[in-house]
Amino acid sequence: MNGAEALIRTAAGAGVEICFANPGTTEMHLVAALDAAPGIRPVLALFEGVVTGAADGYARMAGKPALTLLHLGPGFANGIANLHNARRASSPIVNVIGDHATWHLAADAPLTSDIESLARPVSRWVRKTATAAELAGDTADAVAAARAGAGGVATLIVPADCAWGEAPGPVAAKRIEPRAAVAGATVDAIARSLRGGKPALILLGGDSLSRRGQLAAARVAAKSGARVLLGTFPPRVERGAGLPPLAKFPYFPEQGVELLEKVGELVLAGAVEPVAFFGYPKIPSRLAPEGCHISVLAKPDEDASAALEALAEALGAKPDEGIRATREAFPEANGKLNSETLGRTLARLQPEGAIVVDEAATSGAQWFSLAAGAAPHTVLSLTGGAIGQGLPNAVGAAIACPDRRVIAFQADGSSMYTLQSLWTMARENLDVTVVVCANRQYRILKVELARADITQPGPAARSLTDLTPPELDFVSLARGFGVPGESVKTAEQLAAALGRSFAARGPRLVEALL
Amino acid sequence: MNGAEALIRTAAGAGVEICFANPGTTEMHLVAALDAAPGIRPVLALFEGVVTGAADGYARMAGKPALTLLHLGPGFANGIANLHNARRASSPIVNVIGDHATWHLAADAPLTSDIESLARPVSRWVRKTATAAELAGDTADAVAAARAGAGGVATLIVPADCAWGEAPGPVAAKRIEPRAAVAGATVDAIARSLRGGKPALILLGGDSLSRRGQLAAARVAAKSGARVLLGTFPPRVERGAGLPPLAKFPYFPEQGVELLEKVGELVLAGAVEPVAFFGYPKIPSRLAPEGCHISVLAKPDEDASAALEALAEALGAKPDEGIRATREAFPEANGKLNSETLGRTLARLQPEGAIVVDEAATSGAQWFSLAAGAAPHTVLSLTGGAIGQGLPNAVGAAIACPDRRVIAFQADGSSMYTLQSLWTMARENLDVTVVVCANRQYRILKVELARADITQPGPAARSLTDLTPPELDFVSLARGFGVPGESVKTAEQLAAALGRSFAARGPRLVEALL
Repeated sequence: MNGAEALIRTAAGAGVEICFANPGTTEMHLVAALDAAPGIRPVLALFEGVVTGAADGYARMAGKPALTLLHLGPGFANGIANLHNARRASSPIVNVIGDHATWHLAADAPLTSDIESLARPVSRWVRKTATAAELAGDTADAVAAARAGAGGVATLIVPADCAWGEAPGPVAAKRIEPRAAVAGATVDAIARSLRGGKPALILLGGDSLSRRGQLAAARVAAKSGARVLLGTFPPRVERGAGLPPLAKFPYFPEQGVELLEKVGELVLAGAVEPVAFFGYPKIPSRLAPEGCHISVLAKPDEDASAALEALAEALGAKPDEGIRATREAFPEANGKLNSETLGRTLARLQPEGAIVVDEAATSGAQWFSLAAGAAPHTVLSLTGGAIGQGLPNAVGAAIACPDRRVIAFQADGSSMYTLQSLWTMARENLDVTVVVCANRQYRILKVELARADITQPGPAARSLTDLTPPELDFVSLARGFGVPGESVKTAEQLAAALGRSFAARGPRLVEALL
Repeated sequence: MNGAEALIRTAAGAGVEICFANPGTTEMHLVAALDAAPGIRPVLALFEGVVTGAADGYARMAGKPALTLLHLGPGFANGIANLHNARRASSPIVNVIGDHATWHLAADAPLTSDIESLARPVSRWVRKTATAAELAGDTADAVAAARAGAGGVATLIVPADCAWGEAPGPVAAKRIEPRAAVAGATVDAIARSLRGGKPALILLGGDSLSRRGQLAAARVAAKSGARVLLGTFPPRVERGAGLPPLAKFPYFPEQGVELLEKVGELVLAGAVEPVAFFGYPKIPSRLAPEGCHISVLAKPDEDASAALEALAEALGAKPDEGIRATREAFPEANGKLNSETLGRTLARLQPEGAIVVDEAATSGAQWFSLAAGAAPHTVLSLTGGAIGQGLPNAVGAAIACPDRRVIAFQADGSSMYTLQSLWTMARENLDVTVVVCANRQYRILKVELARADITQPGPAARSLTDLTPPELDFVSLARGFGVPGESVKTAEQLAAALGRSFAARGPRLVEALL
């Protein structure tokens, strides 16, 4: 067999089931190997940002990596933004990048570039295969690197001659390094701190965003009086009725500073220390004041859920202690759509088990608060600030969880980076409801202009923050990609449109005019 | 004034007129500076691949750089593929990337990444500004670096505090290093070789693709009997009636090898030595045989036009010697659209002075040959193999040349990488006629599968090379972005649609169903 087939068989043997792909000439043997070797389903996307964002969404829901198949440096580069988000989400992904044959690189053909320099900033592991015989072993190492600990992005560069050259065969899966356990002494020390009576805040991230982690955190809170918040950008968090109604740490740094001023003990459970998303004059990077004591219950790659359970036990909390949200009977919203009526309508109607991919930006703020009382659901959020994550994440989540409704709750400006996702939704007939919040502006940038004391934006500033003219027509765009759509202006129309989509299989787009 | 305003005033003083932009929070002071300082027109794009591809198209037509304004590492990364093409085209571009404030980088906020590692592979010059006071000087250096010699990509990373901090003011433009002149001895040696009587081929690239370079090459050919060809991917070439009817060096390496077998003397005039676009088993990287003598008349960054004129003089060629194409009276094409009827219709109707951005891939082959006899026009082609160049290049070319019709001759698969270009065409009311060649497949990949001896593609290979289902509906997509469109199936319908577009201002899309 050739190296390409050995790669595919090795990946399949290590549990990989999906390959999100946008291949080119240097990947043709890898494409053929997907036919020659069973077990990995290829999913085509029309743009590499969809490929990598889908792999990220898949990883968050499946808990294991898909392959991406990408074409040399430029093809990979188109996928970097969503790999940046995946890196911040600790999503396991194995990138397979076809490159020129080893002996052809010296010719500096037009598509030649320094792929490793492009890959390193978004990858925890990068390797370029040297020979066809080594490709299977490199693949096994890549999968293990992607799955180790909290998970991460592994990038394997495959010269074409290593794909077409003769190889001895696949290699067995490597042992996966699990998340490290937290030492009992660490738990005991934090238990003592919490008993000390200082106002405490527990910040959840990584593994503690699971149902198990949140329920343990609620026990700790009930027993100790500590407040519990989610990190600002939870990669994947379980929410809704039956779970603690947790809010997120605020986005704007002034609010973070204000909140932390009253906190004497900050406990990080899989989360990182809160820092400003952007630097602003006269606002510190680190938001916790000098006097706030910070303790790490679990690092992002440690088993935070088990540590929280141990902490609950150490504090003597009962198994069922702690506040849990009950399902709220949301009143129907009426009239014009805004963040509140939109959020309420979605929270009221979203089906049990929905996966909501939240890239609604300024339009989505209300929904997140309200949805604490919605039916149990999963939220994926924008982790690295590289907009264009939402629609591809929805593709990947729907591939990972074909029995669950996926709702892509999406800002209009952000949708434009990876709108080609709609085509893959139609091609694979994915149960995705896309709700585009069409406020026709980069609303967050208008807020940021004001924050930068640019209170009277001139024509240049206005033209670079307004999305009109012309008005994007999302129903036509969706139709162009093969997805049916409709446009709504009121909460009642939105409710009807959501009902139609939730009752049917396949994708549908709802343009919500705000 | 702050650093941002000093940057904009410095760039304007150095001749920069346009800023293609997709800014974010870290660029707000730069956005405001476009209002505070006159002279640079901002053009918004919805995706960074459009920004950089537009800057490339602008540079090829204007012969000088635009600014791009991009948001940290991920925003820049979205623009890398078209910067790769720009690098291969030697297009002058000045990237301005906003970054976190210098003191904020240590916080590793979500959008932090290694921007320099991402920028180096596509930039001839990369610098990160250290203080607000140095920003204007760095800008002057960036413009000079972009314009030096043949031109290239300069990337300036601007921490937010350098943009908002106090600066002494703008800096005067630096001296631009012109293209180096070719030594007389080089010209004389090549004149002697050409008189030697070996079958000779002159390959044109870079500067020699100009009208002046081509006319000189035709004189050399007429006097010496040498054949003249264009490099396979000319960044910008003048063509049509009045110019020599030059073909391109073939794309597939077997054809290149066959052609060069009969060549004893290969003269490179601003072109690089022909190499295989991809490496294939049993085909060499370098296509010229051992026995072929290669001489460099002008390197890509040298003045190849002047060198060709000197060579023509040295050979004693008369000023008006050499074959020039006459305007051909193309017969009207009828019936079903294919590469030939499509190419003939376009060659017949394209208006004088048109700029044709050729990313039609397999569908465009016939047109290029035929258009040697069309009205005088300019062709921009895909230089680096990173598909998705065509539509953004058309945006930039139309901004650079508002009095000329731009024709984006575009493959369907390739259009999907940067389709957001249509929105900027509508917003700026650019005179662009987009002709999408809709064959609904990655046709080139089917060819490459066959070349790799995969003659019976399985379901995976078929699904990764077919663009159906669903069928992309380009008329709806165009409408969604604010561009009127129509779909045609015959040469007669295409002719009518082109006529309508050429007679009106503003953009229009024609979906040509092949």
